[in-house]
Amino acid sequence: MKIDAAYYTGNGSFELRQVEDVPPGPGEVQVETAYCGICGTDLHVYLGHMEARIGDNRVIGHEMSGRVSAIGEGVEGFAVGEPVVVRPLAHCGACPACKAGHIHVCHNLKFLGLDTDGAFQNRWTVPAHVLHKLPAGMALDHAALVEPLAVAVHDVRRARVAVGEDVLVIGGGPIGMLVALVARHAGARVTVSEVNENRLKLAEDMGFATANPKREDVAARVMAETGNKGADVVFEVSGTQPGVDLMTAVTATRGRICMVAIHAQKPQIDMFRFFWREIELIGARTYEITDFDAAIAMLSDGIGVETLITEIRPLAELPQAFKALTENPNSMKTLIRVSEEAA
Amino acid sequence: MKIDAAYYTGNGSFELRQVEDVPPGPGEVQVETAYCGICGTDLHVYLGHMEARIGDNRVIGHEMSGRVSAIGEGVEGFAVGEPVVVRPLAHCGACPACKAGHIHVCHNLKFLGLDTDGAFQNRWTVPAHVLHKLPAGMALDHAALVEPLAVAVHDVRRARVAVGEDVLVIGGGPIGMLVALVARHAGARVTVSEVNENRLKLAEDMGFATANPKREDVAARVMAETGNKGADVVFEVSGTQPGVDLMTAVTATRGRICMVAIHAQKPQIDMFRFFWREIELIGARTYEITDFDAAIAMLSDGIGVETLITEIRPLAELPQAFKALTENPNSMKTLIRVSEEAA
Repeated sequence: MKIDAAYYTGNGSFELRQVEDVPPGPGEVQVETAYCGICGTDLHVYLGHMEARIGDNRVIGHEMSGRVSAIGEGVEGFAVGEPVVVRPLAHCGACPACKAGHIHVCHNLKFLGLDTDGAFQNRWTVPAHVLHKLPAGMALDHAALVEPLAVAVHDVRRARVAVGEDVLVIGGGPIGMLVALVARHAGARVTVSEVNENRLKLAEDMGFATANPKREDVAARVMAETGNKGADVVFEVSGTQPGVDLMTAVTATRGRICMVAIHAQKPQIDMFRFFWREIELIGARTYEITDFDAAIAMLSDGIGVETLITEIRPLAELPQAFKALTENPNSMKTLIRVSEEAA
Repeated sequence: MKIDAAYYTGNGSFELRQVEDVPPGPGEVQVETAYCGICGTDLHVYLGHMEARIGDNRVIGHEMSGRVSAIGEGVEGFAVGEPVVVRPLAHCGACPACKAGHIHVCHNLKFLGLDTDGAFQNRWTVPAHVLHKLPAGMALDHAALVEPLAVAVHDVRRARVAVGEDVLVIGGGPIGMLVALVARHAGARVTVSEVNENRLKLAEDMGFATANPKREDVAARVMAETGNKGADVVFEVSGTQPGVDLMTAVTATRGRICMVAIHAQKPQIDMFRFFWREIELIGARTYEITDFDAAIAMLSDGIGVETLITEIRPLAELPQAFKALTENPNSMKTLIRVSEEAA
């Protein structure tokens, strides 16, 4: 059958095409994509930062929800029409990370929707083992946030956030906000540090304490508010030098810093502080299978991700949606309604 | 009674004096110091880096062994003549770190022998609770290495070194060598990376694999030797920019880096690698009570610290011993025989 697909064609441009669908082979399932969010990484593709990896003929998109549309040979346990999301990771099974059981950070990890064609198309064919079923009745626009929510669940688990702890999230973009939601769900007292006033307002509306490092000394304030203890857990989601300066200044003795951001440059880090206060820094990337299951359960319980959805546009307006996201400081999460029938 | 004491009098000079001893008050014990090692921190004092903290009238020294010489009121469980070592930490009991049980990284920690007078004197009066008893028959010169060995035990515990793991120690000074010994005792395969040929030779004599980053690409070699896995645990004991560059390049996915060194400058750190490989960085400082007990047990079992003792000099030659340590690249650990009677 003919399907609609948005191809990234290089140099910041997308082309909408009608192409033949890919029927599922043995062990595969075809999914009718309902919604697919635009991720920060997708924006990097659009801005031309990833041409070597992506090329000029790629369907991107991975923050998706949809319904099973066809089932390949040998696949059991799925029915056409079932609502699902995709955990978009393909591991090699043979590298040292896979051998140690850490398949989500496989040394040869392929990310579906970056290294292979992704979800900005009506029908997406994937290996059956990357599918997670959704509970009946979950809104599929909300379900498109399962993937970034799973990132946040993974971060909060890696950082071992415990009930009653003081948490600071540095950077209030979509991932920072989701981390804040999950950390609060874990019973922590959460403050969001952010420089964008619109995002600060959103964080306040979501019930978080907020701080703007352009207007105040955030470390001094957190120290004062915690009886000179500091934050038990800090999430660095800003990817900036001021962000890493704040993270070492604000973390409690024996506290944990979770490195969520992608630092393309090598920042200067106060290593003395790690020694002096016995601080831990914990890297966190993608998600494990159980993080995806937990994200689905939290979303189902109403953790409140829908507040982050600031715009929904049809697939035909995908190029405009990318352009708008880079120009509008009020934007948080834009979803593309990929298939009108499935949505 | 009159005792001999070496006072640091500022500007890199020591003065040997005969002074009155300090009798133990309630809750205190007086120890006749047998041996006291010269620590890297003591060298920093000698080199004038710590004048503001130390002043110009201070008996330093804390890597000591000795015998109980007098017992203050209300102290039970000690007998005159018993061999002991001192865990030279005084915590406040009221700060956030103490409240959380982390008294060894107390925010107001006083280090005995730096912030108070120390062990380069015949008789040293300390609170009874900082004493650890030594097993009968332990050589007191070896026992002077309990304190630095406890640092290494703490580091290896903080890094959670497990049996069968590949460990790289970056920096083969006294602490690096002790970390290597304890990591091997924990069942790890240990490589020592060091640029000083004399120290490399000593590491080889102690049975460790060695690597010289001036002669080879240590990260590439460790990757090759571990099937492209990398080191499960890396100890950064060099305090240098090349050291931190190596630590991020060589650590396995989900590996741990223990920050042992004191980085006075803020190095540039490859934060991307922490994210990408989900690496952990763990700060480690001083030791807990149990680390001291474990160090005494390991030393008693013959872990082999005595190889590190390169020189023993009487208290009268303390100024010359400090001078020699800064000038002789073959030196590893110099002990001062503080009291001829106790030794």
